[in-house]
Amino acid sequence: MSTAFPQDSVGLVTPQVLHFADPLPLACGRSLADYQLVYETYGELNAACSNAVLICHALSGHHHAAGYHSADERKPGWWDSCIGPGKPIDTNKFFVVSLNNLGGCNGSTGPSSLNPATGKPFGADFPVMTVEDWVHSQARLADALGVGQWAAVVGGSLGGMQAMQWAISYPERIRHCLAIASAPKLSAQNIAFNEVARQAILTDPEFYGGHFQERGVIPKRGLMLARMVGHITYLSDDAMGEKFGRGLKSEKLNYDFHSVEFQVESYLRYQGEEFSGRFDANTYLLMTKALDYFDPAAAFDGNLAQTLAGVQADFCVMSFTTDWRFSPARSREIVDALIAARKNVCYLEIDAPQGHDAFLIPIPRYLQAFSSYMNRIAI
Amino acid sequence: MSTAFPQDSVGLVTPQVLHFADPLPLACGRSLADYQLVYETYGELNAACSNAVLICHALSGHHHAAGYHSADERKPGWWDSCIGPGKPIDTNKFFVVSLNNLGGCNGSTGPSSLNPATGKPFGADFPVMTVEDWVHSQARLADALGVGQWAAVVGGSLGGMQAMQWAISYPERIRHCLAIASAPKLSAQNIAFNEVARQAILTDPEFYGGHFQERGVIPKRGLMLARMVGHITYLSDDAMGEKFGRGLKSEKLNYDFHSVEFQVESYLRYQGEEFSGRFDANTYLLMTKALDYFDPAAAFDGNLAQTLAGVQADFCVMSFTTDWRFSPARSREIVDALIAARKNVCYLEIDAPQGHDAFLIPIPRYLQAFSSYMNRIAI
Repeated sequence: MSTAFPQDSVGLVTPQVLHFADPLPLACGRSLADYQLVYETYGELNAACSNAVLICHALSGHHHAAGYHSADERKPGWWDSCIGPGKPIDTNKFFVVSLNNLGGCNGSTGPSSLNPATGKPFGADFPVMTVEDWVHSQARLADALGVGQWAAVVGGSLGGMQAMQWAISYPERIRHCLAIASAPKLSAQNIAFNEVARQAILTDPEFYGGHFQERGVIPKRGLMLARMVGHITYLSDDAMGEKFGRGLKSEKLNYDFHSVEFQVESYLRYQGEEFSGRFDANTYLLMTKALDYFDPAAAFDGNLAQTLAGVQADFCVMSFTTDWRFSPARSREIVDALIAARKNVCYLEIDAPQGHDAFLIPIPRYLQAFSSYMNRIAI
Repeated sequence: MSTAFPQDSVGLVTPQVLHFADPLPLACGRSLADYQLVYETYGELNAACSNAVLICHALSGHHHAAGYHSADERKPGWWDSCIGPGKPIDTNKFFVVSLNNLGGCNGSTGPSSLNPATGKPFGADFPVMTVEDWVHSQARLADALGVGQWAAVVGGSLGGMQAMQWAISYPERIRHCLAIASAPKLSAQNIAFNEVARQAILTDPEFYGGHFQERGVIPKRGLMLARMVGHITYLSDDAMGEKFGRGLKSEKLNYDFHSVEFQVESYLRYQGEEFSGRFDANTYLLMTKALDYFDPAAAFDGNLAQTLAGVQADFCVMSFTTDWRFSPARSREIVDALIAARKNVCYLEIDAPQGHDAFLIPIPRYLQAFSSYMNRIAI
């Protein structure tokens, strides 16, 4: 490891790519003829292949969860605070796998990939993915890596949904399921926010029905708005108040329709702008749809306990007090169903002012609880 | 009154227009050379001119608060449940005045009016208005109607802010201030939601810098998105869950990027579409700016109690348990400041599942409390 990196970092990491030639049947009825997954690994797989941990990412996440891609990379992977030597997901103990999901825009096959049937980017022709589809594709990745059973599957938000789906779809292949700041399904309000984001993209004149790439443009305005509205739901009212309050951008008010008056406006515009330059609009639509569709209990008349009846994994569920996107009440729905199904479950509600984003933030009590659970996992 | 109207309705009403030729100086530093206000009145002004009540409207409101404009009007005015004979604002007792605010798009001078200086619609050249500006224009309307002092000024949400500003700006001209589902200023999150709505409009290619009228188009997409995001904040998570849950639009999922899958999506799109056909985009920007700017305590180093020191009116403050746009905590800020300033204040938190919209809904306990307060007002 380069001495340039912090001691508790996994250091320099190199993404890897695996190609899968077997068609993957999807929930939508279509299938992907072949596809590739980009992933990173941290730590070493032990001889018994019993120490593998899968990281599932959330809406705008990707495979680069920890470490650095180069010595001059400004920021480490998105969950670097939780993955590394001595960190909650301790790479001295675990072999950690983190992938970019199918439909993503960071190297795995997705809407911006070339459609072999046409030689052009898939764009909006890329099939809609579900959490179940992702879990099946992740199971093939596990096979390829020689991982018969995960010591743990871990995820926050949409990532937590994938962890839950693993426990349901492949009960014998997962020993521990960690679902953080997650929910058993979206509420009407959650779907409504997603729909605003989608409409912003779909109605952007530069979306061109999802085939903007062929025209050399991007629906920048739509993506910007989608990110802005998303961002509000990731932060708590208190966190925004603490961070920006009613602070002004300049010394006095401009009193016009278009000026940035308040710091919070400036922050949101910046977040939106930055995001629109790095994220694919079709992937954003796909990710919000995967969130909307996730509802494993639907096949059991809404009975979540029954849905979880076949689960063999032990669960660790964590939530954050000021998270209003997936509030603690949503996590307790999962916990209550697990208890009703007589499963092993640990639940922790972390006092944190940061809202939904808290799961990405190194909050001491959160890291301690996370470490404590992971340390007890037998390998 | 036509027998076609319900017995407790004010019946047929006709909007009236008053023209003001004295320039109105505005907070932005500009002034309106002349302007007109459209308003309605219900009930009769008594000989002592002591029974007048002013209704202040919220973001998308207007002068038509009660009764019907014609025998075949499908729905009565927007606050018909609260204004009429025997209703909380009892027209057998009170003379009720309801206007469309300056900058509006329902008949009062606003961005869609002709700018006498150019002969074209003002568009984005219309000056930004503040709650204080509105109150000054309302004071001129009161003068014209012979109302020296309001028995009460009443409003919900942004309307409640105007009622508060009346008590601050014209302490001797208001005996009772009713601020319902309101707040002493917007939070960073409130401003953030407004900013998303504004960006949706401002970045719509058919906004043309606010001069879309001259081109015969409207920024329909922007207005639609603005209304959709606004609408989510008017309803509680529970109310949306109750109303739509995860109910599907058709029998099964379509699994594509653009289809309406859930009823809540369909509802939001309808609300957005309908709104974009009837509301002016520049007025929407102006209203959200007026909300953002409202902060009467800013002139007193944020000390709301000191801001209210000169108030003479008695206050009635009401909030609704599931309102997360202006939560009960925001109303309690007003109440606490009034108590600290040793003013008379009544506070009621109504248990209601409907969120911010509750102030428009005939909830029995709300109507009873509202009536009870209004009945005790001496005229």
